[in-house]
Amino acid sequence: METTNILSTSTTLFPTHTATSSYSSTSLSSIPKVRISRQRIRTTNSNNRNLLRVQSRSAAMAIEKERPESERPDTFLRDADEAASAKSIRSRFEKMIREAQDSICQAIERADGVGKFKEDVWSRPGGGGGISRVLQDGGVWEKAGVNVSVVYGTMPPEAYRAAKGDNSATKAGPVPFFAAGISSVLHPKNPFAPTLHFNYRYFETDAPKGIIVLNGLVSHLIGFPHIRTRRFQTKGKNALRDLDGAPRQWWFGGGTDLTPAYIFEEDVKHFHTVQKKACDKFDPEFYPKFKKWCDDYFVIKHRDERRGLGGIFFDDLNGYDQEMLLSFATECASSVIPAYIPIIERRKDMPFTDQHKAWQQLRRGRYIEFNLVYDRGTTFGLKTGGRIESILVSLPLTARWEYDH
Amino acid sequence: METTNILSTSTTLFPTHTATSSYSSTSLSSIPKVRISRQRIRTTNSNNRNLLRVQSRSAAMAIEKERPESERPDTFLRDADEAASAKSIRSRFEKMIREAQDSICQAIERADGVGKFKEDVWSRPGGGGGISRVLQDGGVWEKAGVNVSVVYGTMPPEAYRAAKGDNSATKAGPVPFFAAGISSVLHPKNPFAPTLHFNYRYFETDAPKGIIVLNGLVSHLIGFPHIRTRRFQTKGKNALRDLDGAPRQWWFGGGTDLTPAYIFEEDVKHFHTVQKKACDKFDPEFYPKFKKWCDDYFVIKHRDERRGLGGIFFDDLNGYDQEMLLSFATECASSVIPAYIPIIERRKDMPFTDQHKAWQQLRRGRYIEFNLVYDRGTTFGLKTGGRIESILVSLPLTARWEYDH
Repeated sequence: METTNILSTSTTLFPTHTATSSYSSTSLSSIPKVRISRQRIRTTNSNNRNLLRVQSRSAAMAIEKERPESERPDTFLRDADEAASAKSIRSRFEKMIREAQDSICQAIERADGVGKFKEDVWSRPGGGGGISRVLQDGGVWEKAGVNVSVVYGTMPPEAYRAAKGDNSATKAGPVPFFAAGISSVLHPKNPFAPTLHFNYRYFETDAPKGIIVLNGLVSHLIGFPHIRTRRFQTKGKNALRDLDGAPRQWWFGGGTDLTPAYIFEEDVKHFHTVQKKACDKFDPEFYPKFKKWCDDYFVIKHRDERRGLGGIFFDDLNGYDQEMLLSFATECASSVIPAYIPIIERRKDMPFTDQHKAWQQLRRGRYIEFNLVYDRGTTFGLKTGGRIESILVSLPLTARWEYDH
Repeated sequence: METTNILSTSTTLFPTHTATSSYSSTSLSSIPKVRISRQRIRTTNSNNRNLLRVQSRSAAMAIEKERPESERPDTFLRDADEAASAKSIRSRFEKMIREAQDSICQAIERADGVGKFKEDVWSRPGGGGGISRVLQDGGVWEKAGVNVSVVYGTMPPEAYRAAKGDNSATKAGPVPFFAAGISSVLHPKNPFAPTLHFNYRYFETDAPKGIIVLNGLVSHLIGFPHIRTRRFQTKGKNALRDLDGAPRQWWFGGGTDLTPAYIFEEDVKHFHTVQKKACDKFDPEFYPKFKKWCDDYFVIKHRDERRGLGGIFFDDLNGYDQEMLLSFATECASSVIPAYIPIIERRKDMPFTDQHKAWQQLRRGRYIEFNLVYDRGTTFGLKTGGRIESILVSLPLTARWEYDH
């Protein structure tokens, strides 16, 4: 009888994802056992994974589920947006990031020599979508992800009201927003070749006016950016107008940063020189300001360490002419390849030992610690739902944690 | 001149940990370069790490820094505690967890056959300390950590007042607490051998009365437990009295759970049978209640998956006789080896392929995602300071993230 009891209670260990099938005490015997040599590994894995599924996603996950698409559309913009103006910032920003994705992926494949990007196109029923490209286990890169996405969403009215400190139940409903971005993390194999991260994004909201809080739901939708829960004021000259005349908020964010396992002074100089040149074309204050922002953001606090050797990082940028900032983001995205590939060419074939590789793996562990513990885009993104595989493509293929190292 | 500018600004990339040394623009050349074949790797690593240090720990890290000890003391209790009574729960719980650490480590070493635990003893100036034991890269285990710790601390009065909803500035100062626990994660090498986690802990506070919030600061101090920010009411019959007559709160928490990469029904049955037997000796409600608690807690929400196949988990347990709960925690700790080692003996030498190993590595990645994103003990612990190496010993030696797997 005791065995039966155990069986009976143990079955709740194996909830299934589909509502139609459920394990009873008698169906425990249907749990697949591992057949080591005869069963295809993927079948076994897939079975195991389903056994670990919980019954339903948490209530916090309110985002529409993405669906795969077989073809890349010309645009992920809604028809109305598209019809309104091909000259809109929305439209031009999407064009820019998609061209940047193409050219960067081509340059990566060329430098890699072996690997090819695998592409996943996806969309959401309410509008928007994205293209995820991942090159895994190539000649030079262990894992290289370059994603673009376009998202239409709404912030819950609760978040809006909470931000305004306004509890009146008569207030307006959800606040619509638009977000588009490109984001990428490139992890090479050779321990002397550095990891690169970059991300450029554009946001618009259709708020009545005043103060708005964007929750984490927004932040992960464009890949794995670093949008902060934030407040900002309407700035008269920079506020757009909706078609119906409502003021609209907008801003740019992004950055490019380098994370080597070993420091080569000439690499660091080259990388920062390119970043500085891109910034200096627009404002001499940009580089020192955005470099400090980057240094301050990418800190693994519990380790008392920076994640890497910096670069540039900015957010909430709307205190300049919109055309100027679009050009700036374009320039930054165009600078990724000239900043990074010359370093890769110098390092990708350097001989290394198992010890060098082990040190790289430990530094990869630190990268994971930062992304999973501190990176706001990642952590809020994971907690509010979305395309997990796109968010976590930022993690390296392999990593290592040694005690007391 | 531009090169000089880059140098000048780049130097802030390399802040140093010590206040006495600082990089100026001219000292950038002193940054060590990588010498691949001639320099000892550890020296290079150490240099690199120092270059990534930030200037100071964040203000949030208010815990006293632990210091290494060359010998294990007989007890980590303060003299006053020790003198008060060797029969106290504090004293007996410390004795129990230290004996459990000894016997479990002996059993692990015996089963491993090759590896030996490395021990670190540490203490804090204000009282308390711990013993961390890690076996790394053994014959059977990739990484096995078994830690005990005893912590004396104080909760900030702000946390106390916030919990009470009492803003009067005249309220009492910091609330002292005592915490002791054993915690462990054991990651085997063979992909068919499961990971085990267990943790048992005892808490006391010296609060005037009423409601108390424990912040995350507390939770990580005893290793990597799962203390929640919480409220509880004084329960008359279970409230202790301080030497000076002040009421005292106390509770037990803990659990043991299994995380296989491949599911063997007989292993799961055996593991749960042992947990059930341990629970049933005390209360027939314990096993079903604590099993469900375990299932509900170890969920990787963004993946819609459970971390593993459960076990038992409980917290805030004080609605029973204190002697009974001490016996229960002791029984649970004693059940770790009989629940786990027979499974290890069956699985440790099973032949496996690279694909099996790769699947295990992916499941290890999931383990890391849970611990770094959701585990309250780990996340709050990392953010409030403490012994990082003891907290993160829960992470496997190696892990892997493949896109879309």
